[in-house]
Amino acid sequence: MKNSNANAVWNGNLKEGNGTFSFTGYKGPFTFASRFESGTETNPEELVGAAQAGCYSMFLSALITGEGLTPEKIDTVATVSLGGDDIGPKIENIKLSTKVKCEGLSEGKFNELAQAAKEKCPISRLYAGGTANIELEAELLG
Amino acid sequence: MKNSNANAVWNGNLKEGNGTFSFTGYKGPFTFASRFESGTETNPEELVGAAQAGCYSMFLSALITGEGLTPEKIDTVATVSLGGDDIGPKIENIKLSTKVKCEGLSEGKFNELAQAAKEKCPISRLYAGGTANIELEAELLG
Repeated sequence: MKNSNANAVWNGNLKEGNGTFSFTGYKGPFTFASRFESGTETNPEELVGAAQAGCYSMFLSALITGEGLTPEKIDTVATVSLGGDDIGPKIENIKLSTKVKCEGLSEGKFNELAQAAKEKCPISRLYAGGTANIELEAELLG
Repeated sequence: MKNSNANAVWNGNLKEGNGTFSFTGYKGPFTFASRFESGTETNPEELVGAAQAGCYSMFLSALITGEGLTPEKIDTVATVSLGGDDIGPKIENIKLSTKVKCEGLSEGKFNELAQAAKEKCPISRLYAGGTANIELEAELLG
């Protein structure tokens, strides 16, 4: 079992307060505006998206490696959509858009592995069963 | 609906390859070693933990503000435990440890709100129903 630690501090009330994220190699701010309006800092949703995009890309690399090929580049953007319901704010959708460069990989095998990585990568499995629908758009670059 | 974007790139195979996370105000590396062994970079689990710690702290601030009080500081550490099963790596547990400084808040009300924030904050709701058990340890500082 590997344990990873991260920290967040919030000072003050919700709207005028301010936050700081800390994890290995990073310390930076987040605010109410960056989360719910149009601030210039990051927010929890970007971290949720980065985590899944990173995990997805690593997992897809492993699956491609398992086919005896080496992917040159797996580039994934996650778009995390925050809406709301009666309980409060809610992450309703996460769209993963991945572009992959890999010599020797067929379109059919690529589509199979891209879908499998979406189902099986550990961050996808953490989010499965929660509030978000998870979409995948996968492109094999020529 | 508010959309947040983040990006991750993985170059190469799983073990010798390397990754880069990008989100607002940050660009930094992650590797196989930082995720599964003892590397010096961050990893997806730290981002998952930072996102929940930040969301939890903001949500608890909002609940305390709703009681007519202003929290001075809400400091939350998330410890994310990565194990595995037949499918592959799996996030098995997330422990949130929060320390709160707030004049005028009773111990009883604090415990009620700390628990409610764990259930209702949007990142908790994203993770609920997934692979992880979520624990909370909450302390009201004197």
